[in-house]
Amino acid sequence: MTIGFEILARDGAARMGRLATAHGSIETPAFMPIGTAATVKAMTPDGVAATGARIVLGNTYHLMLRPGAERIAALGGLHRFMNWPHAILTDSGGFQVMSLAALRKISEEGVAFRSHLDGSAHLLTPERSIEIQHLLGADITMALDECTPFPVERDQVEASMELTLRWAERSRAAFKPRPGHGIFGIVQGGVHPDLRERSAARLVEIGFDGYAIGGLAIGEGQATTFAMVEATVPALPPDRPRYLMGVGKPADLVGAVRQGIDMFDCVLPTRSGRTGQAFTREGTLNLRNARHAEDAAPLDPQCRCPACTGFSRAYLHHLTKAGEILASMLLTAHNLTYYADLMRGLREAIAAGRLSEFAGAELLPPPLLDERKVG
Amino acid sequence: MTIGFEILARDGAARMGRLATAHGSIETPAFMPIGTAATVKAMTPDGVAATGARIVLGNTYHLMLRPGAERIAALGGLHRFMNWPHAILTDSGGFQVMSLAALRKISEEGVAFRSHLDGSAHLLTPERSIEIQHLLGADITMALDECTPFPVERDQVEASMELTLRWAERSRAAFKPRPGHGIFGIVQGGVHPDLRERSAARLVEIGFDGYAIGGLAIGEGQATTFAMVEATVPALPPDRPRYLMGVGKPADLVGAVRQGIDMFDCVLPTRSGRTGQAFTREGTLNLRNARHAEDAAPLDPQCRCPACTGFSRAYLHHLTKAGEILASMLLTAHNLTYYADLMRGLREAIAAGRLSEFAGAELLPPPLLDERKVG
Repeated sequence: MTIGFEILARDGAARMGRLATAHGSIETPAFMPIGTAATVKAMTPDGVAATGARIVLGNTYHLMLRPGAERIAALGGLHRFMNWPHAILTDSGGFQVMSLAALRKISEEGVAFRSHLDGSAHLLTPERSIEIQHLLGADITMALDECTPFPVERDQVEASMELTLRWAERSRAAFKPRPGHGIFGIVQGGVHPDLRERSAARLVEIGFDGYAIGGLAIGEGQATTFAMVEATVPALPPDRPRYLMGVGKPADLVGAVRQGIDMFDCVLPTRSGRTGQAFTREGTLNLRNARHAEDAAPLDPQCRCPACTGFSRAYLHHLTKAGEILASMLLTAHNLTYYADLMRGLREAIAAGRLSEFAGAELLPPPLLDERKVG
Repeated sequence: MTIGFEILARDGAARMGRLATAHGSIETPAFMPIGTAATVKAMTPDGVAATGARIVLGNTYHLMLRPGAERIAALGGLHRFMNWPHAILTDSGGFQVMSLAALRKISEEGVAFRSHLDGSAHLLTPERSIEIQHLLGADITMALDECTPFPVERDQVEASMELTLRWAERSRAAFKPRPGHGIFGIVQGGVHPDLRERSAARLVEIGFDGYAIGGLAIGEGQATTFAMVEATVPALPPDRPRYLMGVGKPADLVGAVRQGIDMFDCVLPTRSGRTGQAFTREGTLNLRNARHAEDAAPLDPQCRCPACTGFSRAYLHHLTKAGEILASMLLTAHNLTYYADLMRGLREAIAAGRLSEFAGAELLPPPLLDERKVG
């Protein structure tokens, strides 16, 4: 009656496994590309699947406003709407609503806010968030949480975490179990290990199909992110998937996998692709940089993506300088392929019991080569 | 030593044939998608080929400025640079340079102009235009012409046409014949049938591998365009390809094919695709129109393109409203498929001797349905 999760191999705290959903299975650790407005930007669904991704993330906030959850339901659900036959996880809308700042007001009931599109008034409660995600047809539904800002006083973090727990209970109660569908709770608690632990323990009492760690990667730094993961993971059931929300750079993913995280999402590979940034085995490259202008070599000779098998760095440089849509298409495809291959590399390393050798491996690039030597 | 052209069937003045170039053969009548800056906007080369296109147009003006003709040559030529294995026709740069207005000055020698990108000074002569097109590796090179503006006094049109003829002679002399490569002359003469005829006759004396009709579709109206084609075609050799530049809407293509035109180019299908316009068997649709918001039907149930086989009108409406790149990708693919299928339909009609029945056929849509009934 829920999503399946089978752990196939372990290496230290890391796990290699398989999620089973109503729309196919996903090998973990997995990275989920962001499909905010019912499309992974600059990609066809076939193109997304070709990178290796078998699950994407949809955004409740964006979709409830445009085109509307009821409309998507009437059109057969989000999978059919966006022609994506594989799994979909939807966020709860909480993160986006919180970022509206002046346009929203949080109460016990939920979040009252105004649309950034037309100013219309909306109320997002735990019950409505779960209903929207049901209308969308999400394989994995997320409980509504308050994403606590950073930095903020401890008592505010604690109050926010407690509100998230009450919302988690209401979210769980509102969720209608169906085979192959599940709901995840979200651990909050800011940068306080004891609050993280308490949040996790209380969510486990409520009982979810998986557990997310939220409210991180918002400026606290990698060491703190990892410390919060370390405080949280022991409080979570070992047989259920763990999802670190909004993370991250390749090095963040490698580190968190070693801590026992199974799932990730981040705008980095897609957003970077639209601004000329590429992740490669030799580091992060800025294709706008003039040093690529006459370079006949591919972006990454080891990569199997359409950008690397068909074109030179000089061509990709030209496209980014000219502002061509094809630059976004090719670099997004490349970055998602890089992320998918990184996750595959991690899974293979776990299966082989050689994850410790992965830290400095060819798949883990140093940050932003081009920021050091601008040509 | 030139491009081959074989006429396989005739129906009235219309011809069905095959162009043979160094990069494969093209069935005519053919429509050439525009690949201005070494990319058909919002399309991968594979995607362009999947529409049925086997020749694209590259722009000398844009490419000489960015990334530069010598750089493209050093990188193996335009085919390799943009990963397009099929044929390429390059324009002479004349049309774009003329449109720079304040930034250019025409003399007997050529056109002095300043780049719209960085203000740098350039001189485009017939010899340099041909050299650039050689560096790009164009299968079909165009002679440098002055595209006479419209409307303008007759003596100005005549002087411009005479200049184009002198430039045509210099272009022809500068062209280096190679197997599978050819150069086309461009007929000018404004809206004056006698000037058109004289221009054509003199070009034929010079002797080109094909003949283009230029300076039309710039505001003179379809009836005048067709009248100029009618004045020109009898003066052209029957065994050489004829190319009507910058044309056009589906109805323009059908009409001009009936007059004996073999090749076309136009920004319409690609540019329209990026603004939410789609060509369909039931007319031109504006996907931004609210009446598509809940329509689960495909754009065109008879179409084989990725947009029509994978998605609903409601989804395409959503993508255009949200300004998603995927809207441009899917609608460009659709419109180019529509144009390719229209040309295939015309070729089949000519082969079957049934072109007269094609005028009101299912492939010929009425203009802009949505402009009449905005929902």
